[in-house]
Amino acid sequence: MLPQEFIRVKRDGQKHDRESMHEFLSNYLSGKVADYQVSAWLMASFLKGLDDEETYWLTDEIVESGEKLDLSDVDGIKVDKHSSGGVGDKISLALVPLLASAGLVVSKMSGRGLGHTGGTIDKLESIPGLRTEFSTEEFKDLLRKVGAAIVAQSDALAPLDKKLYSLRDVTATVEALPLIASSIMSKKIAVNSDLVSLDVKLGNGAFITNLEDAKELCRIMLSLGKQFGRRVEIHVTDMNEPLGYAVGNSLEVIEAMDFLKGKVNNRFSALVKQLYVDTLNSVNLPVPDFDKLIASGKPIQKFAEMVQAQGGNPKVIDDYSILPLSKNIFELKADKSGYLDYNNTVEVGMAIVELGGGRTRKEDAIDHGVGIKFFVEGGDKVEKGQVIAHIYYNDQHSLDNALNRLSHSFTIKETESAQRPLIWWSTNSKE
Amino acid sequence: MLPQEFIRVKRDGQKHDRESMHEFLSNYLSGKVADYQVSAWLMASFLKGLDDEETYWLTDEIVESGEKLDLSDVDGIKVDKHSSGGVGDKISLALVPLLASAGLVVSKMSGRGLGHTGGTIDKLESIPGLRTEFSTEEFKDLLRKVGAAIVAQSDALAPLDKKLYSLRDVTATVEALPLIASSIMSKKIAVNSDLVSLDVKLGNGAFITNLEDAKELCRIMLSLGKQFGRRVEIHVTDMNEPLGYAVGNSLEVIEAMDFLKGKVNNRFSALVKQLYVDTLNSVNLPVPDFDKLIASGKPIQKFAEMVQAQGGNPKVIDDYSILPLSKNIFELKADKSGYLDYNNTVEVGMAIVELGGGRTRKEDAIDHGVGIKFFVEGGDKVEKGQVIAHIYYNDQHSLDNALNRLSHSFTIKETESAQRPLIWWSTNSKE
Repeated sequence: MLPQEFIRVKRDGQKHDRESMHEFLSNYLSGKVADYQVSAWLMASFLKGLDDEETYWLTDEIVESGEKLDLSDVDGIKVDKHSSGGVGDKISLALVPLLASAGLVVSKMSGRGLGHTGGTIDKLESIPGLRTEFSTEEFKDLLRKVGAAIVAQSDALAPLDKKLYSLRDVTATVEALPLIASSIMSKKIAVNSDLVSLDVKLGNGAFITNLEDAKELCRIMLSLGKQFGRRVEIHVTDMNEPLGYAVGNSLEVIEAMDFLKGKVNNRFSALVKQLYVDTLNSVNLPVPDFDKLIASGKPIQKFAEMVQAQGGNPKVIDDYSILPLSKNIFELKADKSGYLDYNNTVEVGMAIVELGGGRTRKEDAIDHGVGIKFFVEGGDKVEKGQVIAHIYYNDQHSLDNALNRLSHSFTIKETESAQRPLIWWSTNSKE
Repeated sequence: MLPQEFIRVKRDGQKHDRESMHEFLSNYLSGKVADYQVSAWLMASFLKGLDDEETYWLTDEIVESGEKLDLSDVDGIKVDKHSSGGVGDKISLALVPLLASAGLVVSKMSGRGLGHTGGTIDKLESIPGLRTEFSTEEFKDLLRKVGAAIVAQSDALAPLDKKLYSLRDVTATVEALPLIASSIMSKKIAVNSDLVSLDVKLGNGAFITNLEDAKELCRIMLSLGKQFGRRVEIHVTDMNEPLGYAVGNSLEVIEAMDFLKGKVNNRFSALVKQLYVDTLNSVNLPVPDFDKLIASGKPIQKFAEMVQAQGGNPKVIDDYSILPLSKNIFELKADKSGYLDYNNTVEVGMAIVELGGGRTRKEDAIDHGVGIKFFVEGGDKVEKGQVIAHIYYNDQHSLDNALNRLSHSFTIKETESAQRPLIWWSTNSKE
């Protein structure tokens, strides 16, 4: 079948067959089908949809395009963690060592941040000397020794996903649910973990902005998990404001460490606690009392072990000055009294990009020492003149741009808003 | 605006603005926007549509991407002829000299044949020595001296159309009406002729297969003509069977010459006669009596003048043996008695490709001496064993393939079919 004939099938709203999808995608990998043909197909798929069977075939093609990571020679119950990405989302930095301190073997394989969403490995790399690139054997050794690892996504797994994602990113074909589902799940299916734990962010700081879409995405991913024999748990969590107080690389690492010491009490800490309980439940393990576990010091110690195993300085848990942090601090004050209301959380993420702490292109370098530390959360009451955030910046120009972004991210309203849940919806393979 | 933001507008079914369309397309011409972005946009435009204003802007961008051809220093009423392409369509070979012999200045600028549709310049090049590539000044001299010219489309006109068409061809985005309209009309608007005469083929041997689509295409092209100040006439003509008896390069030139001598009486001759009348009416000229004009010998003489001016041997009008024609002739006989019924005329065109007389890729060479000469037309009654066609071929293998194609192009039915019109619909700028 000619590539244009394959494209025509989807353009006309018809269903592909297994054979022709294999031919089209394998010829793309080998260079016989061109980027401009795949992008036309992606747009047709975006607008006409892929059904569950087509999504399964696509996912299978992506999985089979690369190597597989066999964890069967790593003891323990292995959890593979993933988040769809948001603003101030440092959950993995806290949850990975926390669950590991409760006995699970937890890994997070992550891409780098792009656009308004920060990347977990970018954040962790704030710690001087820490590495995130490891060979398969080194990665398994980290899991065997520490039980926790946060590393860069291996290029050997699902290379077709990387090729497709790069194309989707520049052709306005990112947000199609079957394409998102196959992209996320293919990389999880390439690893034989015992539980895939997915965090789908929902709200004005996330890619997904309505609950129906989020539920449909969950349904597709759960279905893929079943078809490929992976146990899956999924939480749809709120991203209508930055998660927690800190946004920016070093600042988020500090908030995660503070949490692991029991020193944080906000929406971020509440959410991590709930995920901690749910994940242990998902694998049918008893749930150690959270406060006792924190009091034991094991979680922050596990973080230090993980940092050390990945080449970073474990003393960072006691000496935050090891982390780069800009000396220039701007005090952002409330210009009136009222209730803080985020209507465009994406702009908080873009403020970090303006400060130099994020990327607009993959090859951009980032500054780990800039960021924003809020003293209030969405919905909190503030008084006129009250310092609501410290902005860590390098130069006036980038600060001005960041302030401009922030001014479009929230308002101060006279009336209180209705409370939003931390978790909008959750599901797992048991259901 | 980033290219992906422009694409997103159309993906979401919204309307572009003039400014952003100019930016996207001019950046495509200069290489800043990639093929894979344009193909995604073309697919979004295919599925979500372009309204009349967007189609006008697109056409304008294509026109302005290249040079313009000013015919104001050529005297007379200048007609620019175009056909959307079909099987056995040698209308221009006959109509261009016929109208020129009646006093008009008629030009046909044409691409080469691709797939099942033969190209007019390929056909004319059957005549040894004849050229179709001319500079602008040479082209105008042909019009001044002869009043008739059939030449290759200049690369200097509307280069953006060539780039877009190549991409559409391999991404299943050819058949969108606004894209077809802008492609056809941009090349006509780049030339300041007095009348644009368009022949839209409709049927199972054409790109357009239903009348509603054909009418909508006419409406868009007429509207473009008005906006750019070009008088337009459009005929939607039948392409549910090969047009006339001959299909293949030399054979079609022979049928056109026979027509100009008054020796042909079939659907082809009837259609050319009607177009002759309508075109003269469109420019408000008196219509010389057709039979008298033919009897005067002027039309075939005009053909000879045109051939000579383009470097070919004018004696061809009296000595058809100047044309290459294969010596191997296969007699195709009816395998039963009944009425000839074409259900897939495209396959007749593909039979010519199999014989070597057409192309599947632009760079393919073609053989002018092969083809099919039918002795009956669609709907005619045939008797079992009757010779219905002569197939001019080079080797057994290509003949077998051609016969296989032909066997899928028509059937012999027991009952007579309803007669089809020659002209399904017509319109012009006066309406």
